Amino acid sequence: MEIAFEKSGGLVPAIIQDARSDEVLMLGFMNAEALTETRRTREAVFFSRSRNRLWKKGETSGHVLRVLEIRVDCDADALLLRVVPLGPGVCHKGYRSCFFRQIEDNGSVRTVEERRFDPDKVYAPGAER
Amino acid sequence: MEIAFEKSGGLVPAIIQDARSDEVLMLGFMNAEALTETRRTREAVFFSRSRNRLWKKGETSGHVLRVLEIRVDCDADALLLRVVPLGPGVCHKGYRSCFFRQIEDNGSVRTVEERRFDPDKVYAPGAER
Repeated sequence: MEIAFEKSGGLVPAIIQDARSDEVLMLGFMNAEALTETRRTREAVFFSRSRNRLWKKGETSGHVLRVLEIRVDCDADALLLRVVPLGPGVCHKGYRSCFFRQIEDNGSVRTVEERRFDPDKVYAPGAER
Repeated sequence: MEIAFEKSGGLVPAIIQDARSDEVLMLGFMNAEALTETRRTREAVFFSRSRNRLWKKGETSGHVLRVLEIRVDCDADALLLRVVPLGPGVCHKGYRSCFFRQIEDNGSVRTVEERRFDPDKVYAPGAER
C-alpha cells in the first residue's frame, strides 16, 4: 500500500477514533517512519511539526494509544486509526478528546466536555506535553 | 475564535463525522474562507488542494453535508464537523465513508465496506468528483 506522503510535504493527517465509543479523540500527522513505527509497535507514533521529530503519544503521560485498526482513504492521503486509549484522556489539557470545544454561531467557543484529569499531575514541570 | 490557519500554510484539516452513527466519513482541508462559508451556509465547504479553489461537497453529486456542530481542537489547528450527510455516501468511489479500506498486517489493503452507489450514475462523464 502506497500512502501519498509526498502530496503534503511528507506528512498525512491521521484521525484518532476511540474503537469502543467511536468518539474522535485527536488528529496528528504521520510521515512514513511514524506509520511504520505505529504498525510495528501497534501504538500510535506521530511526527510532531512543532518538535520536528517522531513523537510517541503517551511517551510522557503514559496515555498510550493502542491501535486496533488502520484505515486509509480513497485518495490514500489520510489515515483513520481506531484505538483503545490508555488513561483518562488524550488531550494534554486534561480532556478525553482534544475536540472539547464547540464553535458557536457568534464565533465564540464553548467547552462542551468535562475535564478528566489535571495535566499538572500527569506531566512533570517543564515536560513536553 | 482564532483558528491557526497559518500553521499549515493557510489550511487546517477538517474531520467529517456522521452525527447519527459517529462514523468518520472523510477528511478535507479548510482555509479561512471555506470555514466562513461553511458556517454561513451550514453546509460543508472545503478548499481543494488539487483544484486550488473552494469546493462545496455535493456541488456535483448533490451529496451535501449538513453541518450540525463544529468543534475545534486544543491547539486550534484541526476541526471536527458533525454532519448529516445527504445521499447514500460521501466517497466519490461509491462508499459511505472514504475510509473504506483497511491496511492489513502484511501491508496490503482490504476493502471492508460495501459499495452504496455507482459513481458513474451520480457524476456526469468528465465531471469533477
